[in-house]
Amino acid sequence: MAKYTIVLVRHGESEWNQKNLFCGWYDADLSDKGVEEAKKAGKWLKERKITFDIAYTSVLKRAIKTLYLIQEELDLHWIPVYRHWRLNERMYGALQGKNKAETAAKYGEDQVKIWRRAYDIPPPELEESSEYNPRNDPKFQTLDRRVLPLTECLKNTVERALPYWHDNIVPSIRSGKKVLICAHGNSLRALVKYLDKVPDEEIVELNIPTGIPLVYELDEDLNPIKHYYVAPDDVVKKAIDDVANQGKAKK
Amino acid sequence: MAKYTIVLVRHGESEWNQKNLFCGWYDADLSDKGVEEAKKAGKWLKERKITFDIAYTSVLKRAIKTLYLIQEELDLHWIPVYRHWRLNERMYGALQGKNKAETAAKYGEDQVKIWRRAYDIPPPELEESSEYNPRNDPKFQTLDRRVLPLTECLKNTVERALPYWHDNIVPSIRSGKKVLICAHGNSLRALVKYLDKVPDEEIVELNIPTGIPLVYELDEDLNPIKHYYVAPDDVVKKAIDDVANQGKAKK
Repeated sequence: MAKYTIVLVRHGESEWNQKNLFCGWYDADLSDKGVEEAKKAGKWLKERKITFDIAYTSVLKRAIKTLYLIQEELDLHWIPVYRHWRLNERMYGALQGKNKAETAAKYGEDQVKIWRRAYDIPPPELEESSEYNPRNDPKFQTLDRRVLPLTECLKNTVERALPYWHDNIVPSIRSGKKVLICAHGNSLRALVKYLDKVPDEEIVELNIPTGIPLVYELDEDLNPIKHYYVAPDDVVKKAIDDVANQGKAKK
Repeated sequence: MAKYTIVLVRHGESEWNQKNLFCGWYDADLSDKGVEEAKKAGKWLKERKITFDIAYTSVLKRAIKTLYLIQEELDLHWIPVYRHWRLNERMYGALQGKNKAETAAKYGEDQVKIWRRAYDIPPPELEESSEYNPRNDPKFQTLDRRVLPLTECLKNTVERALPYWHDNIVPSIRSGKKVLICAHGNSLRALVKYLDKVPDEEIVELNIPTGIPLVYELDEDLNPIKHYYVAPDDVVKKAIDDVANQGKAKK
């Protein structure tokens, strides 16, 4: 019997996803398709009468807007929303702003797959002077510069996301609140890895589709009992296939 | 010399403002005009290069959405946003959901003006069974029922809004954060009354226009040095006249 239920949603398609660019901490907006994905996520949750008491998201607008559009469908604008940098997408280092297909053509698909999916091999760091360096971004000026990554492997993302889970989200869950987390492919992958104890070498194969609510039922010790998507089956399958194809160089 | 600067914005027109209904704590959505007002407010702030570190709003969607639309214009979705019931509009008691013109025709313009504008005379209470009773609203289920009003005069609104100002907003201001408050005609009137030490009998005449950013420059003791609207002069004058005409019965 589930003691707690949480819902994870990966943001809808961004304008940079659409252009096949590595996005990471770049604050790309939702594409029109991404807006539609977010609205549908809200509608599917509403159809199941799933509601929330509190929501968590990153400081990146593609996640914040996805959450807002879900709140709109659920008539839940009034619930507390907490934005935090620890829920940001993985920082892609020197790959940020680069075209995925071009990068694959240049470095080879295998190298790109390693950078995208190896658990503990980060891409090259951003240059200090890069326009994508978070140390120059107003969003992060209150933080210690040394906590701001210039690149991350998934292991780094897990390590910086989990403190927020433990210190902020878990106390909310344990207090009985129904929690919604609207974040990114890799920050959600980090949570799922932790919850399901996914081995380092397997997490690479786990693709969370965009805009499809992922429900986790947890026991009293926060161990997952089961998880499922809130969407028609064909929608779930197609989305998972799409994500898996992103890393491949275009022919 | 101003030590601190804060900005107050009254939400854009709601669907109930448009219908000339007393809205209060009813969670009416923005009208199309209200959406446009909010976007313009954001544009005017952007033109002046005014930015924010943190924002406060009520738990009512017309204020939350106004804030979101301003954030969109300013590219500030990432700043912390705090929603709180103490920034809600005045609770209008038995007048909620009633047509303002009809109410004026029934009780007389003078009585309606007293209920709308007398500092310490609340309208009749909501019935316990009323659909507008906040005690039956999911938004307020974590609060002590006794703190939830069934009616309010402006004095009541001042008394319940100021604790949030003192305990939450002031510490942010004093910590050097640039603060935006997006709220309602009467919760903002409450703040302005407090800041400018407006006498009880004069606050009734003070109409804050919708969707026009109101800047307060404060000294180190949070005393106002000056205030001004961020909009073209003709926009400010027209909006103030419109608000003053709301209480009059339609001929």
